Amino acid sequence: MFFFVHVLVELYVDTPEVGNDSDFRVHVFSSSSELLEKLHKKWNLEEKQRFTAMHIYGLDVHLDRFLRSATKAKISSPFSQSALRSILIQLTAASKCKRGTMRYWLSAGPGDFLLSPSGCPTSAFYAVVNDEQVSPHKDGIKVITSHTAIKPPQFATVKSVNYLPNVLAKMEAEEKGAFASIWVDEEGYIAEGPNMNVAFITKEKELVMPNFDKILRGCTAIRLLELAHNLVDQGLLTGVATKNITVEEAKSAAEMMFVGSTLPVLPIIMWDDQPIGDGRVGELTKQLSDMLWDDMVAGPGRIPVSYV
Amino acid sequence: MFFFVHVLVELYVDTPEVGNDSDFRVHVFSSSSELLEKLHKKWNLEEKQRFTAMHIYGLDVHLDRFLRSATKAKISSPFSQSALRSILIQLTAASKCKRGTMRYWLSAGPGDFLLSPSGCPTSAFYAVVNDEQVSPHKDGIKVITSHTAIKPPQFATVKSVNYLPNVLAKMEAEEKGAFASIWVDEEGYIAEGPNMNVAFITKEKELVMPNFDKILRGCTAIRLLELAHNLVDQGLLTGVATKNITVEEAKSAAEMMFVGSTLPVLPIIMWDDQPIGDGRVGELTKQLSDMLWDDMVAGPGRIPVSYV
Repeated sequence: MFFFVHVLVELYVDTPEVGNDSDFRVHVFSSSSELLEKLHKKWNLEEKQRFTAMHIYGLDVHLDRFLRSATKAKISSPFSQSALRSILIQLTAASKCKRGTMRYWLSAGPGDFLLSPSGCPTSAFYAVVNDEQVSPHKDGIKVITSHTAIKPPQFATVKSVNYLPNVLAKMEAEEKGAFASIWVDEEGYIAEGPNMNVAFITKEKELVMPNFDKILRGCTAIRLLELAHNLVDQGLLTGVATKNITVEEAKSAAEMMFVGSTLPVLPIIMWDDQPIGDGRVGELTKQLSDMLWDDMVAGPGRIPVSYV
Repeated sequence: MFFFVHVLVELYVDTPEVGNDSDFRVHVFSSSSELLEKLHKKWNLEEKQRFTAMHIYGLDVHLDRFLRSATKAKISSPFSQSALRSILIQLTAASKCKRGTMRYWLSAGPGDFLLSPSGCPTSAFYAVVNDEQVSPHKDGIKVITSHTAIKPPQFATVKSVNYLPNVLAKMEAEEKGAFASIWVDEEGYIAEGPNMNVAFITKEKELVMPNFDKILRGCTAIRLLELAHNLVDQGLLTGVATKNITVEEAKSAAEMMFVGSTLPVLPIIMWDDQPIGDGRVGELTKQLSDMLWDDMVAGPGRIPVSYV
């Protein structure tokens, strides 16, 4: 992450237009701190807002997946899961952030720029709290089928920063006026969105999601599957299932939605210029969204954070 | 790259062992600079060596591929190719590094932690000179066939930092006492190593390498193919070709080698515990290695760097 480790010298160039190569002289900074100060100034990175911290939602399930992904990436954590949990709670308290997101990374640590982590003496954990507004989505969005190559299952099931495919899948959609794209796997089954799961309500009022064997096991998606049983109990849904879903089955769904921790539910009303159901945000999607939002703001999976 | 952008607060924890959660208090740094200073101290990042800069090898061909990869990753460079070239030459001069490697990255720039680069106002270019010793390899190494999933061609052909598959392919080999692993594509053809190309001398004394349509177009590999024509002229090689190579063909080769910018040629003498040829470093491999080394230290593809 700190890419100036083991660096002999850094240059920071802030002249976007260069006329003549012979006139072109870059300023060499004498230290990383000096460089950083310049970057902070240039990118206005010091703006801060202060709030009282409240609760962290879904931390334990995310930490479980985080460490499972670390194992698959063969990175050992420098801290135990309970220590990571404590660090993140203290970070949240220190941030004074009232409404935001937390992001954290495990790295093989600073090393020698080579592939093998044998040159990295210690792994490193990084975390940030970001003042990102998350609120329920009322309006439906458009999606397209992705033309970006899907990740092989070995990597699609790992939460990692290897996000180039995800970014290109997102950009591809934005270029076509859509919000995001949907990956279809090599067997023709629905996979996932660029960084969110996709769920459907069939015409028979069943909530269905693709199996998690070739895609990321979304923490919010798992929670949605749990909560949806309440709607089955109320007779509003006929069932809840994860299974292989063909494109044809998916496109004939009555309702469709993205599910992800920062959404938490985002209704999808149009796919490849074809309406989903009647082309309006579905009633069951709204109910699932409300249930998940209630779970975020008042459910049992929250950890209280005391601002000290 | 600078992951503390838009961050409300950072914590840096350097206690690897944590006994009791209630006793566990982390120190909160007030600024990125303070954090950085601590990291520098902890990781001994200020050690520097001073040399006279000499030449940069292969810069133009690497910059060509760099910008082609950037286009595929949909990142536009903040500088023209000639400006990037000038920055890197000046960086090398300022580094006073006599023997080392240069690494550089293009990023969508600091943003909002989301997938879409629409929240990243400007792309950013980073470069480092690293005091990494590169010297010709005389001894042969062992390889294994990779069990790590190969990247889809769309991404295998892009030079990017999405290195998780490459790292796992390398680690998989190291765990089995080998130097690196060889990817075989879905059609059963030889692909590449974790960050190097692979080349073979057939029993008919032909230099063959896999086609570059599904793997990274290695700058050093391309140069080796050019230089190898000299050995054809001398009657030492019967031909030079890129083509689809089956595992069976590859394993029956007379000689085998890795090719990459920091190697530049690394003889392979054993593959999945089966010797290549007679199990010793081949004569033609040695000659190709010498030619490539001569090209690096005295060839036409070098840019002189004046230490000022």
